[in-house]
Amino acid sequence: MNEALLEIRPGEVTVEAPPPEGPALYFIGVCRTPWQMTRDCPRRGDYQDGPLCRIEVDPSWGQALQGIQQHDYLQILYWMHRARRDLALQTPKRDGKTIGTFAIRSPNRPNPIASSLVKLEKVDGATLHVRGLDCLDGTPLVDIKPDKCPHA
Amino acid sequence: MNEALLEIRPGEVTVEAPPPEGPALYFIGVCRTPWQMTRDCPRRGDYQDGPLCRIEVDPSWGQALQGIQQHDYLQILYWMHRARRDLALQTPKRDGKTIGTFAIRSPNRPNPIASSLVKLEKVDGATLHVRGLDCLDGTPLVDIKPDKCPHA
Repeated sequence: MNEALLEIRPGEVTVEAPPPEGPALYFIGVCRTPWQMTRDCPRRGDYQDGPLCRIEVDPSWGQALQGIQQHDYLQILYWMHRARRDLALQTPKRDGKTIGTFAIRSPNRPNPIASSLVKLEKVDGATLHVRGLDCLDGTPLVDIKPDKCPHA
Repeated sequence: MNEALLEIRPGEVTVEAPPPEGPALYFIGVCRTPWQMTRDCPRRGDYQDGPLCRIEVDPSWGQALQGIQQHDYLQILYWMHRARRDLALQTPKRDGKTIGTFAIRSPNRPNPIASSLVKLEKVDGATLHVRGLDCLDGTPLVDIKPDKCPHA
């Protein structure tokens, strides 16, 4: 656990949320990136010039990749496993202004699911080589969906 | 439960997945749309000309909307509660071609989380009036994030 993420900054408000009552997630694989520390991750991925990263899909879901090579762009959902889930108001370090959790794309949110657009460079068995991730190495994978070209 | 979604079509393959071991979700509200039956939902939402829908955020998360009115476009994540979670290969009715679950945006996927771009028309307390949803009335809400204008 990254202790820095557990601090409460001035203006931040937490919600007394009961335990989650919704369904549980399957982690269907893992994201492999160059970043071992939260502070090293880019704020948002770059699908054009970002480094090559790997999405390693669990072999049990390998068949579900059939046909994926027809798509140049994918939407990746992943679980930001080091985030807080109880912040309603938060104060980002970069500008120190307090704002509602749903008005920013911070990892800290009731369901810390990130969504990134990536460019698919290569499919190698159940491993996808992509550009555009911004997460820690080892981040659990939640979903892969085909997406539209952002320039279209 | 919509029985039609439980059928297995020719070519479809299910995965013997163990129970989900990942974290549970909070449902943070509900989507209110004109569609009561799956067959009536549009295939993909239209943030320009789609009907006005409501996103009703649970009052306990109301503060987390602070500042949201500054954004014209939002990304909405919701839980497709009537979907199958065990399909690796599926055969969409519209073309009858079998394809991997991660190569299409079908509701049926291991984590049936949908992602829609919506246009925010009005904020009324903890209710957002938006265009661009494509889900059943009563669909559970998972997340709200600010998004970029799709024309930019």
